[in-house]
Amino acid sequence: MQPMILQSDFGYADGAVCAMYGVAENVCPELRVFDLTHDIPQYDIWEASYRLIQTVSYWPEGSVFVSVVDPGVGSTRRSIAVRTCTGQYVITPDNGTLTHVKRICGIAQARVIDETVNRLPNSGESYTFHGRDIYAYTGARLASGAITFEQVGPEVPADSVIELPVVEAAMEGDCVSGTIDVLDVRFGSLWTNIPRELFLRLGLKHGNRVEVTISNDTRTLYKNIMVYARSFADVNVGEPLLYVNSLDCVAVAINQGSFSKAYNIGTGITWRISLRKAPRIIYE
Amino acid sequence: MQPMILQSDFGYADGAVCAMYGVAENVCPELRVFDLTHDIPQYDIWEASYRLIQTVSYWPEGSVFVSVVDPGVGSTRRSIAVRTCTGQYVITPDNGTLTHVKRICGIAQARVIDETVNRLPNSGESYTFHGRDIYAYTGARLASGAITFEQVGPEVPADSVIELPVVEAAMEGDCVSGTIDVLDVRFGSLWTNIPRELFLRLGLKHGNRVEVTISNDTRTLYKNIMVYARSFADVNVGEPLLYVNSLDCVAVAINQGSFSKAYNIGTGITWRISLRKAPRIIYE
Amino acid sequence: MQPMILQSDFGYADGAVCAMYGVAENVCPELRVFDLTHDIPQYDIWEASYRLIQTVSYWPEGSVFVSVVDPGVGSTRRSIAVRTCTGQYVITPDNGTLTHVKRICGIAQARVIDETVNRLPNSGESYTFHGRDIYAYTGARLASGAITFEQVGPEVPADSVIELPVVEAAMEGDCVSGTIDVLDVRFGSLWTNIPRELFLRLGLKHGNRVEVTISNDTRTLYKNIMVYARSFADVNVGEPLLYVNSLDCVAVAINQGSFSKAYNIGTGITWRISLRKAPRIIYE
Repeated sequence: MQPMILQSDFGYADGAVCAMYGVAENVCPELRVFDLTHDIPQYDIWEASYRLIQTVSYWPEGSVFVSVVDPGVGSTRRSIAVRTCTGQYVITPDNGTLTHVKRICGIAQARVIDETVNRLPNSGESYTFHGRDIYAYTGARLASGAITFEQVGPEVPADSVIELPVVEAAMEGDCVSGTIDVLDVRFGSLWTNIPRELFLRLGLKHGNRVEVTISNDTRTLYKNIMVYARSFADVNVGEPLLYVNSLDCVAVAINQGSFSKAYNIGTGITWRISLRKAPRIIYE
Repeated sequence: MQPMILQSDFGYADGAVCAMYGVAENVCPELRVFDLTHDIPQYDIWEASYRLIQTVSYWPEGSVFVSVVDPGVGSTRRSIAVRTCTGQYVITPDNGTLTHVKRICGIAQARVIDETVNRLPNSGESYTFHGRDIYAYTGARLASGAITFEQVGPEVPADSVIELPVVEAAMEGDCVSGTIDVLDVRFGSLWTNIPRELFLRLGLKHGNRVEVTISNDTRTLYKNIMVYARSFADVNVGEPLLYVNSLDCVAVAINQGSFSKAYNIGTGITWRISLRKAPRIIYE
Repeated sequence: MQPMILQSDFGYADGAVCAMYGVAENVCPELRVFDLTHDIPQYDIWEASYRLIQTVSYWPEGSVFVSVVDPGVGSTRRSIAVRTCTGQYVITPDNGTLTHVKRICGIAQARVIDETVNRLPNSGESYTFHGRDIYAYTGARLASGAITFEQVGPEVPADSVIELPVVEAAMEGDCVSGTIDVLDVRFGSLWTNIPRELFLRLGLKHGNRVEVTISNDTRTLYKNIMVYARSFADVNVGEPLLYVNSLDCVAVAINQGSFSKAYNIGTGITWRISLRKAPRIIYE
């Protein structure tokens, strides 16, 4: 018996999530079901992918994640189940939701769900709620041990799992650059794809100053100097800081303010950030 | 031991829901408690009723739903517990919350809660939080087996359970009409009370075109032709469609858009929708 | 094995809460984890403190609350665990979050978390998510019995636990006054710090009329007469009322309206409310 963790863009205001829980309860009353979030912005596959990588590795091996952000429901997009290289399972439409898991955790094995057997009995006339009829049902059966991973369906190459386009973080000269992947929603901090290890090749230590440039396509929206801090409390309230976030990547914030609102910063691969050691300024 | 599922209009921002969970935990630490939703719009009994019918039948027999949308808290409205014809229990103020359950599932037996015995000990001076003091407490005791259904209180006729006014879906000539009952909140789709079976009497197949008319009282807000699709992916992004929703009734949506926002469509018995086979248009 | 209950200002939209659940699951797969709320306004220690007092006593002895509203993450503020005089535990940054628990429940014993042993293994490079790395981890270990309360860390005087400033409710002449502590968020009711017992010294009975004055610093925002009602249903829809809330303190509301929105009333110690028996008005 393993835990099942649900994610979707359904919100909490109607009965959709509760119907998925009910399906799980019918499969196995002892099953432990949890929520990642159901507030993924509608159809936002990128954010669904990111929230998985933010959480998957904190759960035990064998945990079953079910993620349903599915703009193509009813199309020919595959329904897929993968085992990550860290031992968790993810069940989802194969539409890019596994982008970060594939790149960062790695996918050990992928299987296409055989919907002729892995489908809620008597749900055959419903074509719009695969989250309930296929994904939660199959996830609950896998997590509870009613079926093995093999019984989910035929194996397919891990390589065939669909990925959204990604721009790699890189070092060039005295500058490290990457993209702004996602916001720490509640606090307006920018989370980048620049790993701590790469960033440290700039030779910076806590308390040093960094020049941060943020641009969207050809437009520069921010260029200024801030402290590389261990944490928010190292700077004044209202002061910007650069820090290593809880995913071990570089992030930018305003202490007790919202960086993204202050400078109208968004997320995605067109939002670039570059960092270099701040120049020494000498007043003469 | 059966699961208990909570619904209310309390929101998640304060401690009200957590206090209900604590009461349940005190009744029985092994009890499994779940949420339907706590985001029912304040005092909206109709929507509470609809969310129950959207979920009740997906839960095992014996499951105990507790729904607290209670504009009349402290009045003489009854507190009631029913067993549905599908075997689940619902505990709620008797104010119309059981409208859809009574009409669609059916009520096998109804009992009025005897508040002299089924009330959280030492809560006698609190008159405004029956959700915690009466409903969650009684629900937890019923779900855990501490009391039987009979011990909830004296039986009353199922007929006496209060219903909100409803307009039936009907066929007239070549036209099927009904009401817009509720929105798929996150996606802005319109969910009608027209069952698939009734709709199919128009003789339509997937891919055929339907004329959809939507009016509120005497005003027509939408009249146009759209495809009867199996699912969203059958139409282009931004295109409207008519489909059978996850409750097996007719629904109307815009693929990856919001139909309700696009045309300012609301819900309730004054919001009428009628459907007929689209006329053949011949250009000469 | 005891339940663990989480509170934070992280919101539900990203993976932060789910990562905390995952840490707990890794500590002990049988652990029962619940949410108080994660919608505390960002950095609002006062509201976090209030939501604890609203719920703690409804949970069994031994329950472990973990509250993470932590504007000083990374500073020298202590991480603390207390046992309340009613037998529950609370683990939190020592920043005022325990204000109401200390004053109302009382603190039986306080300990500073020894972060050299009570920290998620391999989280040493992360300085910004103590909710996951220290508080949820330590809470899960305490709730599951992996460590005793003594093993959390060295005892410190209960007196040393930090409190936010509070203004006491008081009676003066024919008038009882206090502060508006918090809103019943969804319904816009004002919850004061005036206990029922103190209020009743005005000699009022249900159905009597009360003069209510609300001011913020030197400005009076409301002065009018309303009924002391048992519950909302005692007054008309849209009518104001004064009642005793579910925490046994005086509250003010508009039946099916929002008092706080109607008169722009906020919360905190500068928001004062005073009550006296309404004068008899004689028309001659």
